[in-house]
Amino acid sequence: MVMPLALLEKTVDKRISLLLKDSRVLEGKLTGYDEYMNMVLDETVERTAAQEERRLGTVVLRGNNVVSISLL
Amino acid sequence: MVMPLALLEKTVDKRISLLLKDSRVLEGKLTGYDEYMNMVLDETVERTAAQEERRLGTVVLRGNNVVSISLL
Amino acid sequence: MVMPLALLEKTVDKRISLLLKDSRVLEGKLTGYDEYMNMVLDETVERTAAQEERRLGTVVLRGNNVVSISLL
Amino acid sequence: MVMPLALLEKTVDKRISLLLKDSRVLEGKLTGYDEYMNMVLDETVERTAAQEERRLGTVVLRGNNVVSISLL
Amino acid sequence: MVMPLALLEKTVDKRISLLLKDSRVLEGKLTGYDEYMNMVLDETVERTAAQEERRLGTVVLRGNNVVSISLL
Amino acid sequence: MVMPLALLEKTVDKRISLLLKDSRVLEGKLTGYDEYMNMVLDETVERTAAQEERRLGTVVLRGNNVVSISLL
Repeated sequence: MVMPLALLEKTVDKRISLLLKDSRVLEGKLTGYDEYMNMVLDETVERTAAQEERRLGTVVLRGNNVVSISLL
Repeated sequence: MVMPLALLEKTVDKRISLLLKDSRVLEGKLTGYDEYMNMVLDETVERTAAQEERRLGTVVLRGNNVVSISLL
Repeated sequence: MVMPLALLEKTVDKRISLLLKDSRVLEGKLTGYDEYMNMVLDETVERTAAQEERRLGTVVLRGNNVVSISLL
Repeated sequence: MVMPLALLEKTVDKRISLLLKDSRVLEGKLTGYDEYMNMVLDETVERTAAQEERRLGTVVLRGNNVVSISLL
Repeated sequence: MVMPLALLEKTVDKRISLLLKDSRVLEGKLTGYDEYMNMVLDETVERTAAQEERRLGTVVLRGNNVVSISLL
Repeated sequence: MVMPLALLEKTVDKRISLLLKDSRVLEGKLTGYDEYMNMVLDETVERTAAQEERRLGTVVLRGNNVVSISLL
């Protein structure tokens, strides 16, 4: 069995894609997380539905507003 | 009585269908979960209302955004 | 005083109706629950606003997305 | 200071009005609650925006989907 | 550093304005709160977008549905 | 690894931008936070989609309604 947090642990310093509750998609390098799935992303980019990009730099995300996390 | 997490335990390595809070439906093989119902899915496919499919690979899901889980 | 979980306990193996946060209504036999009000329903039927029915079989529900529970 | 749960305690067996997260308004007699503000209502009536009434009987409510509670 | 709950403590018996998750704005005198930011307001008034007022009296609010709290 | 709360700690007394669940954007000086990511902001300004500004002064924010936090 693969525990969700164990998979996050293996993903540190790799780029991930996050789907947020408000339908935004963020991509960035995972630099940290905690037991609530709060996360820190570096070099974060927001992709809009129109495939535009917005650079957000370093972002702290609250875990409960993250729907899903995919590896890139 | 069937405890919810006990049913998830029996579902590991089987395919499930998830309804998310944002109305998306994901199907995949459950490879792990924790006490908050955070889950890891492999070979994940998103099905849209128009019955299109989008392949998402390995996905970590935060439990609070999962509405319901069905066995396939 | 009637504790909410004590009422659920008395409802095991009976049919209930659930209103979910996304306005869907599910009916099914409650076969289990836990302290977070996560639930397992058997013979689950979803009723849409148009009074259509969709059979869902066995479903695990995450408690935080359940608004209210009524006995049938 | 009036603690929120202490006020609920004094409200047991009285009629209250609940505003839910999905904008529904329920009125009923509070017969029980727990530390998460999960509640049991008896003789529950739902009032719609059009001032129609729907009788729901005994209902278990999950606290996180209750926005506010008023005494009647 | 100003801890959020310490600021609430200093606000007891003062009037505050609350923004709720459903975009409603409530004003009232804070008479109590707990560690989850559940609150009791007295002399509560709801202000709508059209600047209408609705008197709600004493209200218990569940903390997770409160977005932000401002002093008046 | 950078823990999310450790990054908040380093941000105390600096200006941050918050995206809330209801799509509002707040900017202010972080004067405190707790383990749930509840926060206190001073000199808070709300920026609307039309780039208008509304001054809100000191605001307490409940962590679960904060989607993401960026340094300014």
